[in-house]
Amino acid sequence: MFRLASLFNTSIKTTCCLNNLSLSKTTRKTLGFHLNSISSKLSSFSNLRTQMGDYSTVSGSTSSKLLFRQLFEKESFTYTYLLADVNHPQKPALLVDPVDKTVDRDLSLVKELGLTLIYAINTHVHADHVTGTGIIKGKVPGVKSVISKTSNSKADIFVEHGDKIHFGNLFLEVRATPGHTQGCITYVTGDGPDQPQPRMAFTGDAVLIRGCGRTDFQGGSSIQLYNSVHSQIFTLPKETFIYPGHDYKGFTVSTVGEEMLFNPRLTKDEDTFKNIMENLNLPYPKMIDVAVPANMLCGLQDLTKRSSDALAN
Amino acid sequence: MFRLASLFNTSIKTTCCLNNLSLSKTTRKTLGFHLNSISSKLSSFSNLRTQMGDYSTVSGSTSSKLLFRQLFEKESFTYTYLLADVNHPQKPALLVDPVDKTVDRDLSLVKELGLTLIYAINTHVHADHVTGTGIIKGKVPGVKSVISKTSNSKADIFVEHGDKIHFGNLFLEVRATPGHTQGCITYVTGDGPDQPQPRMAFTGDAVLIRGCGRTDFQGGSSIQLYNSVHSQIFTLPKETFIYPGHDYKGFTVSTVGEEMLFNPRLTKDEDTFKNIMENLNLPYPKMIDVAVPANMLCGLQDLTKRSSDALAN
Repeated sequence: MFRLASLFNTSIKTTCCLNNLSLSKTTRKTLGFHLNSISSKLSSFSNLRTQMGDYSTVSGSTSSKLLFRQLFEKESFTYTYLLADVNHPQKPALLVDPVDKTVDRDLSLVKELGLTLIYAINTHVHADHVTGTGIIKGKVPGVKSVISKTSNSKADIFVEHGDKIHFGNLFLEVRATPGHTQGCITYVTGDGPDQPQPRMAFTGDAVLIRGCGRTDFQGGSSIQLYNSVHSQIFTLPKETFIYPGHDYKGFTVSTVGEEMLFNPRLTKDEDTFKNIMENLNLPYPKMIDVAVPANMLCGLQDLTKRSSDALAN
Repeated sequence: MFRLASLFNTSIKTTCCLNNLSLSKTTRKTLGFHLNSISSKLSSFSNLRTQMGDYSTVSGSTSSKLLFRQLFEKESFTYTYLLADVNHPQKPALLVDPVDKTVDRDLSLVKELGLTLIYAINTHVHADHVTGTGIIKGKVPGVKSVISKTSNSKADIFVEHGDKIHFGNLFLEVRATPGHTQGCITYVTGDGPDQPQPRMAFTGDAVLIRGCGRTDFQGGSSIQLYNSVHSQIFTLPKETFIYPGHDYKGFTVSTVGEEMLFNPRLTKDEDTFKNIMENLNLPYPKMIDVAVPANMLCGLQDLTKRSSDALAN
């Protein structure tokens, strides 16, 4: 078991093994991570505003709920995101789009912050890097991998448009945003009085800052991407933060309002967008032949291999 | 003049040329950017909580004050920070540690967001990259370069420990944190009811995430750095965000509390820290012979050269 030191809530301890939580198919429609008997201790905080980061109010009388970290992998220019409900006694956490090469960094941070990692989730089957999901599952037993059902890849849990992924009292909403790949989804922080404001959209490669993912591989479709973004992302409040899957110019965050005004591709009409995407003349993705077969298994093949190796030795 | 389109406050317009604001020596102790007659229009917002980012309250009835962006330069692994008071009609903005190679990116973002850049400030005389200050001053007339008096370099404005740098109704506090260089300063967002909470410390190379800057060049001193960090940074509230000058592992932010617990160097006692710093065996900084002479002039030499070239042509 992955035992974690609590950095902040040392007064509230539990021996509950969160990672043994199993999810049946019937619970997958709305993924839940609720320990109500424990979280009721925190009911006095329920009327507090939820804020991004380690926020506290000006008076300093309360602590925040969402801990948020953006992490960068320099070879594939990938962003991984760590989110946790730090007001919950177990500080349940999830990683969005972890990369194989930076798993140790990410897990070290999770441990230092006293978080309990419960999900490793992907926005899509990546073609430019290998997901860290499999390695994480090997190092932190009980972590569940999550990906869209339409990705047709393997994972512990499949999600569909409209599903919610709960971690503590926070949740991510799943929005189907196909086009870069057929199985792309965008995770958006919840809409509600105790959820972070502004909302945060983890768009993967559907919307990049002043750009978007290519649409010429993996069942991609420029028309589908255009419609996905305009119906599922550009309809969010303009102040919604956009946290992309990559950035190649050193930007870290944008907003829906900014991309609606300044995205050089997605501000165009549908035909112009289609024409732009069909004439990008991009090289063949150099990692695709390695990354896609690995990512289609969402890291599960590594576990099988390691198990076989362990038996053989 | 650098005319900017306002993204959000299009209803409030002014022709006041902010960049013509000149600062006498007597006003340098407390740098001010106050347009009270205009900002009084916003007095009804004065009791609102100040928040990081484009925050609005849950009710959606108000907008935030601080716009904040972290920007990355991939060759020197440098972070540049953009801060602006977006509730102020002119949206006055400043850049912390701009890099020469990413000036166009940064100024494009400033323009898109409708900000008025007034200061380009440095935490110290960098040895690993050339500051973008000079190029910015050439492209945006009226922008003032800011650096510490103890850096002994050139700049439009010199600051000392305890000074405040105002931009709109927000300000940065200057804390002397020598040790990496003799002139290192840390800029900390203001302490007050209308300032961002938690506070944000732009530490340059004094504190890096789980590390610190080297102390073997430019008047560096490990003992001085140790005392600077423990007296000026580790005394800030533990939830204070630490935004470093660089990160080489893909981290973007830490907190004072985290570094007090997990920084592998600065958590040690003074003698151990000194011993660590004296035995790093780091190579000679590859950019130092180019960067330091350029940065000692805080970019001002570029302007002189360009002016001469312009006259010659």
